[in-house]
Amino acid sequence: MKTVEQYLESLRKLKPTVYMFGEKLEDPVSNPRILAGINATGATYELADNQKYRELFSAISPLTGDRINRFTLTPQCIEDLVKRVKINRLLGSYVGTCHQRCTGLDCLCTLSIVTYDIDRKYETHYYDRFKEFLKYMQVNDLAGNASVTDVKGDRSLSPHEQDDKDMYLRVVDRSKKGIIVRGAKVHQTGSLSAHEVIVLPTRALQKGDEDYALAFAVPSDTKGLIHVVGRNSLDTREIEGVDCGNIRYSKYCPTIIFDEVFVPWERVFMCGEVEFAAEMVSRFSAFHRQSHGGCKSGKIDAMTGAALLMMDYNGTAKATHHKEKIIEMIHTAETIYGCSLAASYEGRREPSGTFFIDPVLANASKIHEGKQMSEMVRLLIDVSGGFVADLPSERDFDSPRIGSLLKKYMKGAVGVPVENRIKMLRLVEKMAMESADTVSDIHGGGSPAAHRLTLFRESDTEYKKQCAKRLAGIE
Amino acid sequence: MKTVEQYLESLRKLKPTVYMFGEKLEDPVSNPRILAGINATGATYELADNQKYRELFSAISPLTGDRINRFTLTPQCIEDLVKRVKINRLLGSYVGTCHQRCTGLDCLCTLSIVTYDIDRKYETHYYDRFKEFLKYMQVNDLAGNASVTDVKGDRSLSPHEQDDKDMYLRVVDRSKKGIIVRGAKVHQTGSLSAHEVIVLPTRALQKGDEDYALAFAVPSDTKGLIHVVGRNSLDTREIEGVDCGNIRYSKYCPTIIFDEVFVPWERVFMCGEVEFAAEMVSRFSAFHRQSHGGCKSGKIDAMTGAALLMMDYNGTAKATHHKEKIIEMIHTAETIYGCSLAASYEGRREPSGTFFIDPVLANASKIHEGKQMSEMVRLLIDVSGGFVADLPSERDFDSPRIGSLLKKYMKGAVGVPVENRIKMLRLVEKMAMESADTVSDIHGGGSPAAHRLTLFRESDTEYKKQCAKRLAGIE
Amino acid sequence: MKTVEQYLESLRKLKPTVYMFGEKLEDPVSNPRILAGINATGATYELADNQKYRELFSAISPLTGDRINRFTLTPQCIEDLVKRVKINRLLGSYVGTCHQRCTGLDCLCTLSIVTYDIDRKYETHYYDRFKEFLKYMQVNDLAGNASVTDVKGDRSLSPHEQDDKDMYLRVVDRSKKGIIVRGAKVHQTGSLSAHEVIVLPTRALQKGDEDYALAFAVPSDTKGLIHVVGRNSLDTREIEGVDCGNIRYSKYCPTIIFDEVFVPWERVFMCGEVEFAAEMVSRFSAFHRQSHGGCKSGKIDAMTGAALLMMDYNGTAKATHHKEKIIEMIHTAETIYGCSLAASYEGRREPSGTFFIDPVLANASKIHEGKQMSEMVRLLIDVSGGFVADLPSERDFDSPRIGSLLKKYMKGAVGVPVENRIKMLRLVEKMAMESADTVSDIHGGGSPAAHRLTLFRESDTEYKKQCAKRLAGIE
Amino acid sequence: MKTVEQYLESLRKLKPTVYMFGEKLEDPVSNPRILAGINATGATYELADNQKYRELFSAISPLTGDRINRFTLTPQCIEDLVKRVKINRLLGSYVGTCHQRCTGLDCLCTLSIVTYDIDRKYETHYYDRFKEFLKYMQVNDLAGNASVTDVKGDRSLSPHEQDDKDMYLRVVDRSKKGIIVRGAKVHQTGSLSAHEVIVLPTRALQKGDEDYALAFAVPSDTKGLIHVVGRNSLDTREIEGVDCGNIRYSKYCPTIIFDEVFVPWERVFMCGEVEFAAEMVSRFSAFHRQSHGGCKSGKIDAMTGAALLMMDYNGTAKATHHKEKIIEMIHTAETIYGCSLAASYEGRREPSGTFFIDPVLANASKIHEGKQMSEMVRLLIDVSGGFVADLPSERDFDSPRIGSLLKKYMKGAVGVPVENRIKMLRLVEKMAMESADTVSDIHGGGSPAAHRLTLFRESDTEYKKQCAKRLAGIE
Repeated sequence: MKTVEQYLESLRKLKPTVYMFGEKLEDPVSNPRILAGINATGATYELADNQKYRELFSAISPLTGDRINRFTLTPQCIEDLVKRVKINRLLGSYVGTCHQRCTGLDCLCTLSIVTYDIDRKYETHYYDRFKEFLKYMQVNDLAGNASVTDVKGDRSLSPHEQDDKDMYLRVVDRSKKGIIVRGAKVHQTGSLSAHEVIVLPTRALQKGDEDYALAFAVPSDTKGLIHVVGRNSLDTREIEGVDCGNIRYSKYCPTIIFDEVFVPWERVFMCGEVEFAAEMVSRFSAFHRQSHGGCKSGKIDAMTGAALLMMDYNGTAKATHHKEKIIEMIHTAETIYGCSLAASYEGRREPSGTFFIDPVLANASKIHEGKQMSEMVRLLIDVSGGFVADLPSERDFDSPRIGSLLKKYMKGAVGVPVENRIKMLRLVEKMAMESADTVSDIHGGGSPAAHRLTLFRESDTEYKKQCAKRLAGIE
Repeated sequence: MKTVEQYLESLRKLKPTVYMFGEKLEDPVSNPRILAGINATGATYELADNQKYRELFSAISPLTGDRINRFTLTPQCIEDLVKRVKINRLLGSYVGTCHQRCTGLDCLCTLSIVTYDIDRKYETHYYDRFKEFLKYMQVNDLAGNASVTDVKGDRSLSPHEQDDKDMYLRVVDRSKKGIIVRGAKVHQTGSLSAHEVIVLPTRALQKGDEDYALAFAVPSDTKGLIHVVGRNSLDTREIEGVDCGNIRYSKYCPTIIFDEVFVPWERVFMCGEVEFAAEMVSRFSAFHRQSHGGCKSGKIDAMTGAALLMMDYNGTAKATHHKEKIIEMIHTAETIYGCSLAASYEGRREPSGTFFIDPVLANASKIHEGKQMSEMVRLLIDVSGGFVADLPSERDFDSPRIGSLLKKYMKGAVGVPVENRIKMLRLVEKMAMESADTVSDIHGGGSPAAHRLTLFRESDTEYKKQCAKRLAGIE
Repeated sequence: MKTVEQYLESLRKLKPTVYMFGEKLEDPVSNPRILAGINATGATYELADNQKYRELFSAISPLTGDRINRFTLTPQCIEDLVKRVKINRLLGSYVGTCHQRCTGLDCLCTLSIVTYDIDRKYETHYYDRFKEFLKYMQVNDLAGNASVTDVKGDRSLSPHEQDDKDMYLRVVDRSKKGIIVRGAKVHQTGSLSAHEVIVLPTRALQKGDEDYALAFAVPSDTKGLIHVVGRNSLDTREIEGVDCGNIRYSKYCPTIIFDEVFVPWERVFMCGEVEFAAEMVSRFSAFHRQSHGGCKSGKIDAMTGAALLMMDYNGTAKATHHKEKIIEMIHTAETIYGCSLAASYEGRREPSGTFFIDPVLANASKIHEGKQMSEMVRLLIDVSGGFVADLPSERDFDSPRIGSLLKKYMKGAVGVPVENRIKMLRLVEKMAMESADTVSDIHGGGSPAAHRLTLFRESDTEYKKQCAKRLAGIE
Repeated sequence: MKTVEQYLESLRKLKPTVYMFGEKLEDPVSNPRILAGINATGATYELADNQKYRELFSAISPLTGDRINRFTLTPQCIEDLVKRVKINRLLGSYVGTCHQRCTGLDCLCTLSIVTYDIDRKYETHYYDRFKEFLKYMQVNDLAGNASVTDVKGDRSLSPHEQDDKDMYLRVVDRSKKGIIVRGAKVHQTGSLSAHEVIVLPTRALQKGDEDYALAFAVPSDTKGLIHVVGRNSLDTREIEGVDCGNIRYSKYCPTIIFDEVFVPWERVFMCGEVEFAAEMVSRFSAFHRQSHGGCKSGKIDAMTGAALLMMDYNGTAKATHHKEKIIEMIHTAETIYGCSLAASYEGRREPSGTFFIDPVLANASKIHEGKQMSEMVRLLIDVSGGFVADLPSERDFDSPRIGSLLKKYMKGAVGVPVENRIKMLRLVEKMAMESADTVSDIHGGGSPAAHRLTLFRESDTEYKKQCAKRLAGIE
């Protein structure tokens, strides 16, 4: 397993093509904004290397017999599924944002089930290829990035009906050695924190969409791959070097353009089997929605802690209405966590040997996240007070002219250093107003409508009807 | 284990003192209203006797080595905790109301932990007495009733501060053979469906409340015990013999007056150890709130089935807004169930060997129930339509003068027999408007405020604060 | 204007055909269940006759110049629209349930607009006929019943597509003197408290549905009209003569079958003009949804009062979490009321001279009612406690054997007579569990989905888009 | 009345002391971030000068007989109260954020009532002074800034109990000419868009707090006044000159330090009359909470327009689940607006002749805002999609290397220019993630807990109890 330092070192060796604010970034790892994101992923290496958490964060690989980071392990038993949730909750509270390494794992989990199922039907050899790739990820302790969400063009049209056929990633050429692909994937959380970009289809496909039925992996600095780091709400803070709020970690989500990228056949895990696109999507979605159940409950832990401290710092620790808000926050965290955990405990073995979670319970968790995280933000702001919107800059506090005046007036509860209050307010701003997190609360793992439809589709409505008929006396 | 028939037979042998509507009921088992409640408990016997569910509903007693009904088993492992939830969900969907046997089990679970803890402190012998009682319950496959909720008098006063000292059940006399108790317990769900009445204190107690620190069990037809069956919203239907809605089951919740009841020492499981009252209450509450997580998600299953059938019967099966409501219902059921299930999986062994659930997750489940069951009712009514309030009586449908006219006009979707639509509407009325259920959704296992406070108290708020401090850079 | 006594006298003179529980009721006014409903309507006569409220409840008829009850007045100015809301709120708090006289008024308001509009297009003479009818209602101070909701058969089919053509009320014969109609109208709140049954179509109609495009009025005891009083949740209480909770008022909602009913032409207000059915429905719905905004906020006033008294009586008056629930109740009442009131103040004059309310604000109010009334019930039960489900009967309290014991144990806060606590708990049961009210909260004035669609349809979405375009810099 | 140009010119003549990001701003009006805020206030001048809106936005001054901007008018009748809401809604939709001029008006309205009341008790002359000031504001068409919220120090202590006595603004010296004050006011929305800073106390005061019972006005560039413009979430966009989203307007909220500021007696409107602090606060709060009811419903109009356009641009215009979200947005806007409007219509004349709104309905509106605006943001993001978090910068779209690739892949629905989709997504980011708005939704006009307590305090709970008693039969 890699240490954090080795992880950073390994990223520095990559040479991805990166644009931000209209300019090319030659050394993304040294960019403070990108680095804050990389550090969040770094926590997955750090904790696995920490004596206290090593047992929880690592496992023995069934492929190599060596100890590996759980973020490269496809679950082999219920216990593995349960630990997925527990390490994600711990990480969520530890980084206070998205650690960005779950998406790659969720792709690996998905491929470990579906490549096997495709092979069973078509006598293809995707599963063996995938196992080689997985072994490579495990041995080198690599981070993966889930390239799932296509740009989609006109959403009322299917891939092959689009005016521009590239609106979903597709094969544009094939050769003996491999395939050439074109398209773009968006909301690529942590794509520069990852060594490998793992591509899955973003939706169910049908006849006519064969060129879009694609799964593969390429290094994140492959030729033709362009990472465009877009804007988020607090995106200049790390670059300015002040007012970050979360002094350690942040998140960014590039758009990745696949501008004629070559993929060798040994890295292709699906190519043309349209009817399996739906399974890829539903497996990935279920895994990823459940990952959120862990990390977002962890993030709420950190938010709740911040709210409790703001009560201490403002002198409102005894306000019963604030206590009710804290209870709401705890309740939401435990709900998201409880359903996610239950999804693991109620998991089952798939033909390939990988364990799969209960999709109904996983989606039940995600629906709460999509609805309630904005409520968490609201409660956090309510408890913290108006400075979430307009706290003066650290530069003002450091100003020889007005710094001492500001510190005089920002003083809160007796006995609390004014600096702590200022720092905590800044953290609250980050946790409440960071758009990269806010949007993932809602759209991560598919839109809320998708979560709801999945819940319905996976439920046994016939059984429910039978119950009602019997009680009503209808034969 | 008893069959349903043996169960009914065993109840008929009891001679409890029962009042209803101002009159004494000499043979309560034959009263159709009481019988509908007894039948719901009967389902716990029926399913344990059913080949398909026998495995799930029964277990081997660690006390006798014999196969026993799970409703007399104190949990010996995580699996036992998990099955608590699963059998409750199944029963909830099977009876469409409360089956009334979980409360007794939750008392047994509680006593199996706390009597041991008291003995450890005081070298008393409650645990041995309790084990004898437990064995008796198991061997005879008896149902217990949880006598927990006192009348409470003025709620701003503690037990010993009340004007009338009997507002909480208390010892009024002691002798070599046993104790005499006086007081009243309310909301005694299924007290006439039970063989034994198991008494626990209803709140934490303090010095001065020694006479109230009581736990014991007496047969439900003990001398001095008076069951007063109060009114609920649909309480005349079974008695009239029409318009029951749920043609099989119902619920009733007497007030039980302990008018100087003698309890022999071998049935006394706590007497005077005030500081253990809080533990009794918190254990029982946690277990019972979790039981609700099972049965209420099962009840929602039946409600969802009814809603889906109403869509079929009304011709609205394709209305997307109704489908959204169905999804809400499923989501609530799975949330309550998921948190409850996670509470079991995350349980732990107590010193006595009994397993205890995670109280945070159990309370997280109950808070949803208390808030969302009324929303389930609302959605069910919304989907079903206005006849939930004013469907003509079966007697009208049978009337030679207007019956055929009514059947003509009550016809719904093409191909659906009008009788089915009428029956299902009647079931919906029962599931939506039965006050015995509605109130238990809110107050069962303590009031919503109690659920919230427990959640807060049992959470690790210090850890949450530490997370926030580290991220904000506060030492 | 009539006094209450004159009103009751006038009802006794009618000879409607009524069935209940399978039997014919020869004297419905003397049936305690029906009478409790009639008394609620009686309050509209009582308050208009009360010196304190006379000014508010009455107005000068523009047709006759005489003072009339506002429940027969079509609004002639904004002030009239505003008073609609205020008298409904007052009545809602005064009767604690539905007073049942608004529906007839809402029909009169609708007809006073639409008959004029039809005449303008077709040179028909509906408006004159209607004015005669209105004058008759005013002069005799009569109550009307809104016969709007058809049974509808298969809801996926339009009226003329139904297997049985009578699933929507229709003309089956025409003569020089009038028309013969057949069909059934359901959820006919207070049909036996009304002198006249006023029929409007229940939905928009299209070509082919001409026979269904009908509006007319007939006396409630017209030959061929059959009132079938269905069941509601607490429907036996008045008949038993105990445990009514609301000791004065109740509600019932018959199904009315039109078994070949003759309507003379002078009472026909629309016949065949299909394209005006939509306007009839939308006008009536808007008026009626707004009426709810008044009476339901008034009902919440009574519920809030009951909750506050339960706090006093239980000894929980200082519980801050209960106070928060009271605030929720007040907030909901004021929201429903505020939007309804604004709908009046923002009303406008229609061509006939009648004033019409703002439909967007009226529907905004109703959507809150449909969603929040069940929450009001939940909060009321939460504050009141478990006895809402199982309070012993008055007959038990009167029992020589157990009455005094029950009274001893039902005692609440110091200084509060036990009788008051018992009475208030019984009232809470009535306000929380009366299905005739509960279902009207949701389906009154059309289903929640209808309220939402109306809101959307009546809103200026184009303006909203223009705002966004300008701010984004899109030409 | 001033034109926008004259307004900007007048601001340029002021020389306020301003700090931002640790540096002194010599020419704040030319700073693009500040200017975007000033422009929002400018809209209040622009629309009053626009033929179409002139009638709505202006009125005749009762003091001068001249036509004045309604933002300098204290309401003289119900119609004036109603127009407050209507111009605020229009402005909210026009600027898509806060226009920042209502707070000053709300101070004027408050002072026009309370100075009169103080004079009546103490025979002081505040009201005359205030009228002079008001005339000055009207004649010169000036904008005012509400300096209400003190820093508050330890919130569990009253002003005079604080360690540092300056935690609430106070008099530190008095002379014949005037007073010297010290302290700081926070969240000073648009303090640099205003000509005058109007100070009111922030809370009820008691004996011992005399020095804090202060109301006065000073020019915003008075000596000793320091405006510190703190950070908000998107605060660098205008400065960078790209990616603003809202291309016209924004909001900023400085902290203002009163570092020994002199106020001449003719500008002092309260000084020492502690018992009137509560009235100042409650009047101002009621007015300001109601102002929000107008502008926030207008902002939702713009948000709803953006959501509808995103549906058009993404190709999801037919998704019924999105339409439901639009309906939620409309419903919230109309609820906030309806209650606010009703508060005006139900207003009453105060002794000074100024009209005051109904505080119950005003607070009912604000409670919805505080709870629902975050839900509006959530729905807007849900409808718009993931690009709200990570849309590439305009600089990327303009890049010769990747600009055309990005435009290719950002194309949405057929027929929609890609530029429009990009612009609208950027506007959505602004409306969803601007912390200056988000926090005002919650804390503007006092915290949510304050809104709730006011609602309770102002309601007639005794009447509600009487209703319930009568219905229950309790004398």
